[in-house]
Amino acid sequence: MLEISEIFNAAAVLKDVARKTAVIPAPKLASDCELYLKTENLQLTGSFKLRGAYYKISQLSDEEKARGVIACSAGNHAQGVALGATHNGIKALICLPAGAPMSKVEATKGYGAEVCLVPGVYDDAYAKAIELRDANGYTFVHPFDDPKVIAGQGTIGLEILEQLPEVEAVVVPIGGGGLIAGVAYAIKTLRPDVKVYGVQAAGAPSMVQSLADGKIAHLDKVATIADGICVKQPGELTYELCSKYVDDVVTVNDDETAAAILALMEKQKVVAEGAGAVAVAAVMFDKVPVRGKKVVALVSGGNIDVNTLSRVITRGLSKSGRNYTFTINLPDKPGQLANVMNVIAAEGGNVISVNHERINSSTEITGCTIRLELETRDNDHIKRLRQALTDAGLQVTN
Amino acid sequence: MLEISEIFNAAAVLKDVARKTAVIPAPKLASDCELYLKTENLQLTGSFKLRGAYYKISQLSDEEKARGVIACSAGNHAQGVALGATHNGIKALICLPAGAPMSKVEATKGYGAEVCLVPGVYDDAYAKAIELRDANGYTFVHPFDDPKVIAGQGTIGLEILEQLPEVEAVVVPIGGGGLIAGVAYAIKTLRPDVKVYGVQAAGAPSMVQSLADGKIAHLDKVATIADGICVKQPGELTYELCSKYVDDVVTVNDDETAAAILALMEKQKVVAEGAGAVAVAAVMFDKVPVRGKKVVALVSGGNIDVNTLSRVITRGLSKSGRNYTFTINLPDKPGQLANVMNVIAAEGGNVISVNHERINSSTEITGCTIRLELETRDNDHIKRLRQALTDAGLQVTN
Repeated sequence: MLEISEIFNAAAVLKDVARKTAVIPAPKLASDCELYLKTENLQLTGSFKLRGAYYKISQLSDEEKARGVIACSAGNHAQGVALGATHNGIKALICLPAGAPMSKVEATKGYGAEVCLVPGVYDDAYAKAIELRDANGYTFVHPFDDPKVIAGQGTIGLEILEQLPEVEAVVVPIGGGGLIAGVAYAIKTLRPDVKVYGVQAAGAPSMVQSLADGKIAHLDKVATIADGICVKQPGELTYELCSKYVDDVVTVNDDETAAAILALMEKQKVVAEGAGAVAVAAVMFDKVPVRGKKVVALVSGGNIDVNTLSRVITRGLSKSGRNYTFTINLPDKPGQLANVMNVIAAEGGNVISVNHERINSSTEITGCTIRLELETRDNDHIKRLRQALTDAGLQVTN
Repeated sequence: MLEISEIFNAAAVLKDVARKTAVIPAPKLASDCELYLKTENLQLTGSFKLRGAYYKISQLSDEEKARGVIACSAGNHAQGVALGATHNGIKALICLPAGAPMSKVEATKGYGAEVCLVPGVYDDAYAKAIELRDANGYTFVHPFDDPKVIAGQGTIGLEILEQLPEVEAVVVPIGGGGLIAGVAYAIKTLRPDVKVYGVQAAGAPSMVQSLADGKIAHLDKVATIADGICVKQPGELTYELCSKYVDDVVTVNDDETAAAILALMEKQKVVAEGAGAVAVAAVMFDKVPVRGKKVVALVSGGNIDVNTLSRVITRGLSKSGRNYTFTINLPDKPGQLANVMNVIAAEGGNVISVNHERINSSTEITGCTIRLELETRDNDHIKRLRQALTDAGLQVTN
């Protein structure tokens, strides 16, 4: 079981390895509480996972170290184990599902691990890792359900108390529960007056379900853009620590998470992955009772694919009225498109793309349809543009 | 003229106002030097400008304070002056060109300044600001050519020396020159062995030109995505300090700046604006002689419009082969599009958009053209997709 002394020991071991990430005020993200971010997305490897993996590996016996470690992950844990093993001078083998993004495979190799690509999905890679462990005597580094791993993550709790002693509540993402187990244990042991809230994705609420059931629940289907916390079942130890030390666990949906990612970029200038943004989303969308309080939201990681990020931005822009696509029916005569463009220009719309079609079942046989994607200022600007187009005699269908 | 004691004084004044932004190692951005980032994009207001503006305002006489301040800016300086004035309890009026982005106008108002929208461009807003100053006795807060403003920016130099005493070179963006004047003066006064390099956008090289001419140059036309340093002419004081204390000034082009913005997001999880990324670009693209050295690149700001950011990402993705649009000519028969999609799916391409056109001057009368935008892994993946499409008998024209 966990002891607070183990977390202090982990902090000493991690002192020269893990970055003591900054706690940054974020007044623009929430107006009714005093919000700070613990920026573990700016941690080495781009996530907090380094802490637990490194500490676990550092505490192996010489014999275990000589045999090496194995882990199974397509994400942040893989990079944490790889860097932890390399720093400790031992061999690491990471099993990944063969379909894992190239960027993650390359990053894991880049930190010095050997990679074993396993055909199939995560469960297949996990089975392979266990098989290889049994055959070769590697130590399996569990991503969350391990007291040493949890102790490593708990160092974040110590740092928060040191960096912002007047903190009143801490909000933490939950996947398997390793991060919150360590953070909640550290904080409640040292400062039982500080509230600790957990946040899961609405599409993967395994800890919420487990706490409601009073026993570990297994979800058959999970899906969320917060892939780092898309976990079917919490660990035994993490479940136990959560039930004991966490004040409440709430959920946020993918749209709320996407809005938090966009707000973090625009207002705080930092990149968060989905899992990294759920605690901020919970504060922004009032899911946790923190009004008037000094709150730290833990931004757990920043490893988001830029393609995904680009989609999140596009979606966020359109939600906030800064991007809109008009569909307009036009008589198929010269000068019509110029007419549209003049109206748009006069109202200050900035054209991103134009799609002009003559054949379309919904248009008149002598007409055509244009789809016009614009940069706009806000929803009022879209209304003004629509009005101006209508006033100019144009038939706007969308 | 500047004294080092003034910079220490500015540091004392700014102690509880400006954030002492972190110096973060960035090993993934440059392999042949030891690169660190001074993250002024994580400063309050999203840029370093707060420092100079705040210090300048704090040093006004009571009489000057009572009359209030005026400034002209569409960007970071406006927000710095607004926050500086509000904190000091005095009135600020900011003149902005009427076409300034809504987001910047709102941010400036949000920090408590009054905004005067002036029809025309920057020069018109500047003329209006001077007119209002003369009529009402406001103090004009210059964005760079003022010893107090320069002293405020110089506090960044003190912080770098304190945060990374073993630093060997510092790379700093240059627009009007206020930032580098303060930083170079502080560093060269205290640690003459540390090199200081300046970076300008290739599309606005006013300081480069001035140093080459041996006198202040005025550029008639400037254009760059790094709008924060798109300045036609350096200041007198900043030019003098630059010629005396800066080792060299280089330029980077917009593609290099865009690549640096993308790398900062992907690898360092921080958002930089164009001007904020040029120092990183100079290191990444080997424009400054820093091989084997401990280098700090100053990331001066993060106030980039997300629409622009989205374009930078898209461009960066396509440059690195992670996004590609194929154009394919097809006979206009049922099943053709399905055929294409099967080939793409088998090779692991992820479809973003499909544009299918029947009428197009470049296609056969019985044919059609599709444009297929895909997420791809890298340039090799694009080659494999192209080969697979060709092997399936499809006519790929692009």
